[in-house]
Amino acid sequence: VVASKINAFKEYVDSELEKFTVPNSPKELYEPISYILSLGGKRMRPILVLMANEMFGGSKENAINQALAVEVFHNFTLMHDDIMDKAPYRRGNETVHKKWNENIGILSGDVMFVLAYKLMCDCKLEKLPQVLEVFSKTAVEVCEGQQLDMNYETENAVSINDYIEMIRLKTAVLLGGSLKIGSILADANAEDAENLYLYGQNIGIAFQLHDDLLDVFGDPDKFGKQVGGDIISNKKTFLFLKAFENANAHQNTKLNSYFYQNHLSDTEKVNQVKNIYNELNIQELTKNEMNKYYDLAMHHLDKINVSAERKQIFIDLANNLMHRES
Amino acid sequence: VVASKINAFKEYVDSELEKFTVPNSPKELYEPISYILSLGGKRMRPILVLMANEMFGGSKENAINQALAVEVFHNFTLMHDDIMDKAPYRRGNETVHKKWNENIGILSGDVMFVLAYKLMCDCKLEKLPQVLEVFSKTAVEVCEGQQLDMNYETENAVSINDYIEMIRLKTAVLLGGSLKIGSILADANAEDAENLYLYGQNIGIAFQLHDDLLDVFGDPDKFGKQVGGDIISNKKTFLFLKAFENANAHQNTKLNSYFYQNHLSDTEKVNQVKNIYNELNIQELTKNEMNKYYDLAMHHLDKINVSAERKQIFIDLANNLMHRES
Repeated sequence: VVASKINAFKEYVDSELEKFTVPNSPKELYEPISYILSLGGKRMRPILVLMANEMFGGSKENAINQALAVEVFHNFTLMHDDIMDKAPYRRGNETVHKKWNENIGILSGDVMFVLAYKLMCDCKLEKLPQVLEVFSKTAVEVCEGQQLDMNYETENAVSINDYIEMIRLKTAVLLGGSLKIGSILADANAEDAENLYLYGQNIGIAFQLHDDLLDVFGDPDKFGKQVGGDIISNKKTFLFLKAFENANAHQNTKLNSYFYQNHLSDTEKVNQVKNIYNELNIQELTKNEMNKYYDLAMHHLDKINVSAERKQIFIDLANNLMHRES
Repeated sequence: VVASKINAFKEYVDSELEKFTVPNSPKELYEPISYILSLGGKRMRPILVLMANEMFGGSKENAINQALAVEVFHNFTLMHDDIMDKAPYRRGNETVHKKWNENIGILSGDVMFVLAYKLMCDCKLEKLPQVLEVFSKTAVEVCEGQQLDMNYETENAVSINDYIEMIRLKTAVLLGGSLKIGSILADANAEDAENLYLYGQNIGIAFQLHDDLLDVFGDPDKFGKQVGGDIISNKKTFLFLKAFENANAHQNTKLNSYFYQNHLSDTEKVNQVKNIYNELNIQELTKNEMNKYYDLAMHHLDKINVSAERKQIFIDLANNLMHRES
């Protein structure tokens, strides 16, 4: 039942996204917007807007513009992040700056951001200030998270706390923010809206930790991306940082040599690092950390003043996210 | 009196901009924002917000947040445009992407755009939808103008109408939009606000044509930039397009050879092109075009239902802009 409900929300979002058209001209500005939105995705953020809105009694038409707004905003951040990360592919297709060029990626992203604000503003007047406050605050935080992520590529002294704070900003606040916007639109009281926000933020952190885990220990047939990609690119994930934190002198030397001496093939590097991760029990330690945030999410969900029935979809969504294989 | 009044608005804007502080961290994200705002400038757009607001009886405190918002927005567009144009200098200082790097220029610009929206939203609830509608519409148009400007670098068949439409979008609508936002905040009626918008848009087009003219015929001691820069970079300005439109076969051949055969030094190229511009009376033709938009601006100013006394500052501002030498 729950999965089909989430699917129904997704279908509604996808069909409304198809109706969301942009001008034809200048085509260099607008084609990349249609393109990136057509690449699909889980549409998790707009679904969260609609789920929150429904939890507090709103009809889906009441929140669809804001649901689309967060999806357009999310795709704007992907367009700009892909330029910054020099990523050639997104969801198996060329990124905008590869298919067109960087200038087009910058400027299409900018106009997409305006379109997100325009959609966000399309709500009842009395909701507008609160909705915009959450949206702008979240947008600033997402930028801060992206900046920290870039900084950490070259910083050596990144702590696990730093890392969690980075993924909170870069990923988790937008899940929380989507839920809060949906809650506001449906007249939730401030405390309930805040608890649902914190549910989303904690699920977001757990979600990202699960992503880190899948990258190394995922099933290559199901994962969809190259397993070990984070290891190959020396990404300072939770697994990386925890391994260095717990490594003895011998393991530390080995990890340093695998990551920084560049004498192994990609496959050998992934295998050797994975061996050390196994010696250090990193998979279980990451799951423990994930569960900590999952439990926090459930704690906040618990406190919301709606029926258990209305909360079930949020429990199931969290469980789906924690057990997904791609 | 009027100049001193505009100066007083400028001082107010500058002092409020100094109070506008950004977070300290991540410093890579926020330092470029303080930096670009500290480079100065005429502050024309926020002054227009305040002038419009005062014309319709508003106090300056009533519109200062929106005045700052348009200035922050304008500087965001400069930050991103400078990346796209690969410009090394801005107001005699290094551009953000040169002083830091392109990624920082992209992301600082993005967060600046959010900060502009946050400032814009800080007004009375009943004004919010109208203010945001003008702002978002203007922001989209400015992006469209920048895209057209980039397109025209490589397109051969650019007409004078295309060019005017490009500068309308890239430059003029933000002057009009600033005036309209100031008008809305001061409860101007829709017709007056629209006429002031059209005053601003037409002054903006005249302003850009004057810029094109100064670039070629400005006094090198007063202009501040290299005279002839547009000729050196083959920029398709009004002067360039008008010269090709009016050239006879002989002049056309010469213009093509100066612009596209690259056999002259910069100084020789500027001098030769200037000779043809003089043969074709381009300076006067450009002034005629400027005056056409100046007259349109005055026509719309005329129609506004406020006293002649309250309009005087707009007449004087237009005259200042038309006769400035830098």
